[in-house]
Amino acid sequence: MIQLTLEQARELAQKILRGNGFSEPHVQAVSATVLAGERDGCASHGLYRVLGCVSSLKAGKVVADADPEVIDQAPALVRVDAKGGFSQLAFQAGLPVLVEKARQCGIAALAINRCVHFSALWVEIEALTEAGLVAFAFTPSHAWVAPAGGSKPVFGTNPIAFGWPRAGHNPFIFDFATSAIARGEIELHRRAGKPIPLGWGIDQHGQPSTDAEAVMNGAMLTFGGHKGSALAAMVELIAGPLIGDLTSAESLAYDAGSKSSPYHGELIVVIDPRRFLGEATDEHLARAEAMFESIQGQGARLPSQRRYEARARSAEQGVQIPQALYDDLKALIAD
Amino acid sequence: MIQLTLEQARELAQKILRGNGFSEPHVQAVSATVLAGERDGCASHGLYRVLGCVSSLKAGKVVADADPEVIDQAPALVRVDAKGGFSQLAFQAGLPVLVEKARQCGIAALAINRCVHFSALWVEIEALTEAGLVAFAFTPSHAWVAPAGGSKPVFGTNPIAFGWPRAGHNPFIFDFATSAIARGEIELHRRAGKPIPLGWGIDQHGQPSTDAEAVMNGAMLTFGGHKGSALAAMVELIAGPLIGDLTSAESLAYDAGSKSSPYHGELIVVIDPRRFLGEATDEHLARAEAMFESIQGQGARLPSQRRYEARARSAEQGVQIPQALYDDLKALIAD
Repeated sequence: MIQLTLEQARELAQKILRGNGFSEPHVQAVSATVLAGERDGCASHGLYRVLGCVSSLKAGKVVADADPEVIDQAPALVRVDAKGGFSQLAFQAGLPVLVEKARQCGIAALAINRCVHFSALWVEIEALTEAGLVAFAFTPSHAWVAPAGGSKPVFGTNPIAFGWPRAGHNPFIFDFATSAIARGEIELHRRAGKPIPLGWGIDQHGQPSTDAEAVMNGAMLTFGGHKGSALAAMVELIAGPLIGDLTSAESLAYDAGSKSSPYHGELIVVIDPRRFLGEATDEHLARAEAMFESIQGQGARLPSQRRYEARARSAEQGVQIPQALYDDLKALIAD
Repeated sequence: MIQLTLEQARELAQKILRGNGFSEPHVQAVSATVLAGERDGCASHGLYRVLGCVSSLKAGKVVADADPEVIDQAPALVRVDAKGGFSQLAFQAGLPVLVEKARQCGIAALAINRCVHFSALWVEIEALTEAGLVAFAFTPSHAWVAPAGGSKPVFGTNPIAFGWPRAGHNPFIFDFATSAIARGEIELHRRAGKPIPLGWGIDQHGQPSTDAEAVMNGAMLTFGGHKGSALAAMVELIAGPLIGDLTSAESLAYDAGSKSSPYHGELIVVIDPRRFLGEATDEHLARAEAMFESIQGQGARLPSQRRYEARARSAEQGVQIPQALYDDLKALIAD
């Protein structure tokens, strides 16, 4: 393992992104989210993703200097046309408008369109809870997941994220795929030649399988049976056709085998508690704290706890990445 | 079984509600939703619920003639104070304001406060999809469900419902508890002296159990492990403290053992696709239809299919209810 300070990790990511031709605003926005992932112990959304940024660019699947356009769509709706660039800069562009609309109207939504998406949703949720808002985020991916009762891929891994601001505490945030497991986990088992648990996927004939390769060529399954499948369909609809953007099937077709990050949209919804609660806001948010205490008081964990623990560790000790990843990253630095 | 036409079923419900003292607006609103449940093959939300309406009234836990008050909270927020009455009339009172706000702002939310709640959320979702809106609904219940990794009840069965309007088709709607199973199912097993499947709940010591009675005295579990648990927490937060209303734990404490329907709030969020999509609305909604076809084309079912089939049957044949339920209902008709 290679030990890096957070500053070294950021500089490494920025040097690669800059050297490969991304515009400075994209270098800043993308490096901030991969650093957040690495720092919080989410290696799958950490520095490793810089490899995919560069390969997506080389495959012609992302615009290196896209300049997002903010569209004031309706009193409580804002859209950002990412113009084929990574989603992070588009989110940054839309964020102040979204926050202002939520404060004005009580609830508001941001649609990011035509973006290339690979970042963890919790990073964006956290920016919204910092503004004191309750936030939801949804995005499709590539069609790898079969509907309950079916055998052929329709849905992406379709994450759902939610955040709740907490005075004096890290926010309550969850961010999970509606697939039973991340696709990367199946790929890791395939590489290691290890069987996968039953329930992760089915083979091309629709039969439950523990063979990682067979499942990658067949279909993944959703978490939670027909309920998870219903949620996956919801994500397709509200972060696809509802905002005029691609479904996971359409996004995979667009990818045409390049194995780039998905190109599509994202929907974010925010609610301002103060517009519902007025002067009683603090009193009611205190009742939410009582619920968190009743969860933690019985030894159960809140969804984001592991990430906050990793964050505290990284602040003191920096991060460690595998030597092989470090070598792959170094190889992308233009001479 | 007793055979009833839909009109007979409606009259039976109305006669009981009216005879026991509910005001005419509540008689109409409540009978409409229990009839919808019976008609759609959801016996657990059908005529059976009229028994609970009367027992809640006798226990002093519902206001028979509550007159809901609509509060224009913010440009995109409306609240209805149900004043201790059943939720249905409060929803009806808020509906036109919610629809108007969604058309105006693009997204809007309705909070129903201080209502007694027992109705299926899909009935309300359907009223919103009929208005051409995409809709979400959330409500807590009574604290019967343990968080993932815990052993003591914190959450209610906390349903989540979603609807998507479809031109020329019944809407795409799902409505499911975030608990592994409805509490009524466990109660049915207990009465029948039958074991329940592993995964539905745990006993008072936190151990997995197949004993229905032990689980009813212990805790139910969420569907989908930690993901379902995270969603259950979200429902508590957004349909509880966020709208200034009770959590499932607070609602159960308020019930004080009367076994009445929960007294708390409900959150409904709607989005107007036309405000996102403008002239391209039909084109994008057609892409949603392509996704539904790719699900049904492989032999999988859409979430609401079974209900629509029951609805078609009931329109022709009426409904059948058990003799024992019919007798119990008849006994509630005031002489």
